[in-house]
Amino acid sequence: MLFDLSKSIEILERTPTVLKTLLSNLSPEWTHQNEGGETWSPYEVIGHLIHGEKTDWMVRTQLILSQEENKTFLPFDRFAQLNEGVKKNLSALLDEFQALREENLAALKAMDISPANLEATGIHPALGKVTLAQLLSCWTVHDLGHIVQITRVMAKQYKDEVGPWIEYLSVLHK
Amino acid sequence: MLFDLSKSIEILERTPTVLKTLLSNLSPEWTHQNEGGETWSPYEVIGHLIHGEKTDWMVRTQLILSQEENKTFLPFDRFAQLNEGVKKNLSALLDEFQALREENLAALKAMDISPANLEATGIHPALGKVTLAQLLSCWTVHDLGHIVQITRVMAKQYKDEVGPWIEYLSVLHK
Repeated sequence: MLFDLSKSIEILERTPTVLKTLLSNLSPEWTHQNEGGETWSPYEVIGHLIHGEKTDWMVRTQLILSQEENKTFLPFDRFAQLNEGVKKNLSALLDEFQALREENLAALKAMDISPANLEATGIHPALGKVTLAQLLSCWTVHDLGHIVQITRVMAKQYKDEVGPWIEYLSVLHK
Repeated sequence: MLFDLSKSIEILERTPTVLKTLLSNLSPEWTHQNEGGETWSPYEVIGHLIHGEKTDWMVRTQLILSQEENKTFLPFDRFAQLNEGVKKNLSALLDEFQALREENLAALKAMDISPANLEATGIHPALGKVTLAQLLSCWTVHDLGHIVQITRVMAKQYKDEVGPWIEYLSVLHK
């Protein structure tokens, strides 16, 4: 499948509702436990997604399409959500993510991006030159990857409860 | 986390709506492509979930709690959905899955399962003796594992589109 802006937006606009449907009003045993060690709980993943809406995807999109001479992205802090002072509850975080995503997609659509725009480039601080199409593809895959992570973390909470079925449940082996 | 019937139902009752929110009205490039070879598309996974509602989880629950002498489960055909004659569209399958799941959860709640019931056992044709708590844990993890699979398959459709970011997107490495 080749990059397609409208097909990317199909995914990006669903993610907040998917996460609300999956996580709202669940017991904290499902939402606030991780996979062990320094891994993230579903709650922490939502904080990470919020940080991306604020500082990553659209900021970089705007930089790529701007008249700035220096198109090097600021590094993205992948652990920012772990260092926040006051902890909001999960329901507030899900609402915040949805509102930020709606604003960002409205802004993205208003940019009326052309095929030539999609080939415009910026400089990733570690990966080097990247195109706008690659950035928007990455945003889409990043959403799906974190839904994978959240549901895998939830599944693992029952790792010791499935008895001999563990052999067939490959999600528990990862 | 120890097995808890009400916490399992929290997951089981959300799955049909999560899948509808994720998949309804998506372009077929997201829903009808697989991970290569003999792997399943999201569409095929929904067929598999429907087959489980019809022939697996509640049939086995009822057998475990019945007066039958022979409590050996019938084998579950994990590939049944691939051999169906007439293909329904995805929207019809999502509705069918939701209706079957609602019926099954209503039946499960009506059984008024006691802690002693949860220790009752049946015989899995390959895995041997299993408890009802293990069966219901497996049902829950099975749902989550297939949400993992569906979102991973979708992410992989953009594997060649993310450029150098592939290094950071572990969902594309699996």
